[in-house]
Amino acid sequence: MRKLFAEGLGTTFLLIGVIGSGIMGDTLSGGNVAIALLANAIATGCILYAIITTLGPISGAHFNPAVTLAFFLRREIAAKEAVRYVIVQVIGAILGVWAAHMMFDMSILQVSSTDRTGIAQWFSEIIATFGLLFVIFGGISSNREAVPTLVALYITGAYWFTSSTSFANPAVTIARGFSDTFAGINPAHIPMFIVMQIVAVGIAAVVLPKLFRD
Amino acid sequence: MRKLFAEGLGTTFLLIGVIGSGIMGDTLSGGNVAIALLANAIATGCILYAIITTLGPISGAHFNPAVTLAFFLRREIAAKEAVRYVIVQVIGAILGVWAAHMMFDMSILQVSSTDRTGIAQWFSEIIATFGLLFVIFGGISSNREAVPTLVALYITGAYWFTSSTSFANPAVTIARGFSDTFAGINPAHIPMFIVMQIVAVGIAAVVLPKLFRD
Amino acid sequence: MRKLFAEGLGTTFLLIGVIGSGIMGDTLSGGNVAIALLANAIATGCILYAIITTLGPISGAHFNPAVTLAFFLRREIAAKEAVRYVIVQVIGAILGVWAAHMMFDMSILQVSSTDRTGIAQWFSEIIATFGLLFVIFGGISSNREAVPTLVALYITGAYWFTSSTSFANPAVTIARGFSDTFAGINPAHIPMFIVMQIVAVGIAAVVLPKLFRD
Amino acid sequence: MRKLFAEGLGTTFLLIGVIGSGIMGDTLSGGNVAIALLANAIATGCILYAIITTLGPISGAHFNPAVTLAFFLRREIAAKEAVRYVIVQVIGAILGVWAAHMMFDMSILQVSSTDRTGIAQWFSEIIATFGLLFVIFGGISSNREAVPTLVALYITGAYWFTSSTSFANPAVTIARGFSDTFAGINPAHIPMFIVMQIVAVGIAAVVLPKLFRD
Repeated sequence: MRKLFAEGLGTTFLLIGVIGSGIMGDTLSGGNVAIALLANAIATGCILYAIITTLGPISGAHFNPAVTLAFFLRREIAAKEAVRYVIVQVIGAILGVWAAHMMFDMSILQVSSTDRTGIAQWFSEIIATFGLLFVIFGGISSNREAVPTLVALYITGAYWFTSSTSFANPAVTIARGFSDTFAGINPAHIPMFIVMQIVAVGIAAVVLPKLFRD
Repeated sequence: MRKLFAEGLGTTFLLIGVIGSGIMGDTLSGGNVAIALLANAIATGCILYAIITTLGPISGAHFNPAVTLAFFLRREIAAKEAVRYVIVQVIGAILGVWAAHMMFDMSILQVSSTDRTGIAQWFSEIIATFGLLFVIFGGISSNREAVPTLVALYITGAYWFTSSTSFANPAVTIARGFSDTFAGINPAHIPMFIVMQIVAVGIAAVVLPKLFRD
Repeated sequence: MRKLFAEGLGTTFLLIGVIGSGIMGDTLSGGNVAIALLANAIATGCILYAIITTLGPISGAHFNPAVTLAFFLRREIAAKEAVRYVIVQVIGAILGVWAAHMMFDMSILQVSSTDRTGIAQWFSEIIATFGLLFVIFGGISSNREAVPTLVALYITGAYWFTSSTSFANPAVTIARGFSDTFAGINPAHIPMFIVMQIVAVGIAAVVLPKLFRD
Repeated sequence: MRKLFAEGLGTTFLLIGVIGSGIMGDTLSGGNVAIALLANAIATGCILYAIITTLGPISGAHFNPAVTLAFFLRREIAAKEAVRYVIVQVIGAILGVWAAHMMFDMSILQVSSTDRTGIAQWFSEIIATFGLLFVIFGGISSNREAVPTLVALYITGAYWFTSSTSFANPAVTIARGFSDTFAGINPAHIPMFIVMQIVAVGIAAVVLPKLFRD
């Protein structure tokens, strides 16, 4: 229960960070999308560092079904627990979106109309998710204490070097469908993003064990 | 005495950071509020890291009556000392505001006219303060050395993902009432901010012990 | 083989970071080059931290023929292996450029038309590369764990304090010739950049051993 | 000799960072001074982290006559060596300015025409320098390994929360008189800045030992 609560609360904070800073950046930047994305990327990195550092010792700090799936493929989490993780991640993520909407005085229930589709963005999600798993399992192998910083900095950078701005997380992807704001994604485009994220988990499961040995 | 001096001086530096960088950002950004807030958020994170790292071993580096109250509810600080902490935090904070005004050649005594009110911002203060206590007590439980970085990054992010820009600190809130600059708050709106911050301390006192065990 | 794979994959990620964030920054900033370069510099620092932390224990995390040459001059890598390192670095770098182009829906094969030439930029490359070797070998001597942070922060800063934006890496220089985007370099100007980088390796080989002793 | 070389080279890099990033920021930002200052502040923090981490074990990494004076008052450096430190710091700083001018294709010998004067800026220099000594001696007392990060983040923040942008360093102040660029200072205004920096050393010598005990 404590693990599930940690996964849920952490994912809620993650989405508060992603959606809230997107709204704030979009509002304040007066149409200068680069500054909005810079604030969005920095705030996301900040909250990732915070939740992974504090909750890592409790639940492992996945906050991401792709990460949970990757640990399952390594047989480091049981199927039953993995399913529970994914469920609370998705619920926590949606609650985070709603909390962000409340904080910015918006209607709570929204559906995104931001198109995020096409081969370039799909390929971006493969790279983005593979890179995320690369820093997580590379960090576990090389310097376990650095994992929160690794994930935070990787995602801050990946907002900029992928055309999809690196969702890299099925729970985050689903939740962002519920927000018609800066960080939203048209629900019709969610499934393909998640497919690409799962493809990346598969590639990582083959490639990373050859690179990183415990 | 040494502890009280540390709390007072640290809070003075904190407000110098918050108010000073707000003025500078506002002045230089030519109305581009996003850049002003980015500088404000980064400078606040920088000074938080500095004062918590250096003064933590002396006073615990609260600089925040909400944090002192949370430690009091955990019976880690006596009532008498907690009251003294709060008094020097408020005095130190106001001195910091005045020092910032002097540094920017402004009249020292000011009253803010910036409205910060409404349910969305009040809810933001609950989330912001709860999150602050979450990273502090989570950090103490998981990685005590990381606490200065946790607080610094959390607040840098929270400037962006809450509509109130995360005051999350009654002493800071009171002091910012004394500055009619970028970071100010209309004094009429201070009490409700503080009420929300105290509500968050209450929620944290119930929730966090279930999550983090020493 | 595992070392070579690490060098190649790391350099691929480095170029994904450099080229991708350059394209994104350029696209979003609406001609405000300062914001584009800020995002480019931050994203490059982020990916450098990630690849050096994770791959350092495997291959030494050079990702840079100038660094490999410097280690060779210190007799810490054999000639044969050094040559292999350089080959996979260049191949990995070009693959990274192509991956970035794919992620941003651009034609994969490009040739840069961005002029980067003249004494000022050549001198910048000497300073930039010398500084990079300075932080690497200084970090190895003073605080080995800090090397990923040292390189990441040094390059983030050096984007700003050199007129060439600090290529400081022959593999990166060659690969950036293959991208007609923000971070590209006209191939005609590549050889002199590399000459300057090698000059800096020579200066560092003479100066640094006097400063840093193991 | 090795110590003096470290002090000189480190201060050269510091000024390359300060002046170079000021020029680049000013050039690229198209008159948006806030973005120029943000890049200037971040680049300065980056180079400070690099030089303090790498050269700290060799010379103590002062790079600043105010810091050397403070160590002298604590009897941790002899008078003769302190004088030598100050001399190489000033020489190194001026060489750094010249190197930056060369990198940006400017005439090497310049005299600044940027006015930086008045009570508000003088008071800023007292606060800025006191704060710098506060984080240095506080860090030495609380967490010696954190000193490079403390100084880097403190200065990055202090660029924003002081009206003088925190010179806080007599060698840097003198050298910046030699650059008619973003970071310059009219030589006529240098002496008062240095007086204020020395006043801050005096205040710190009285106050800090009461706060921080070794």
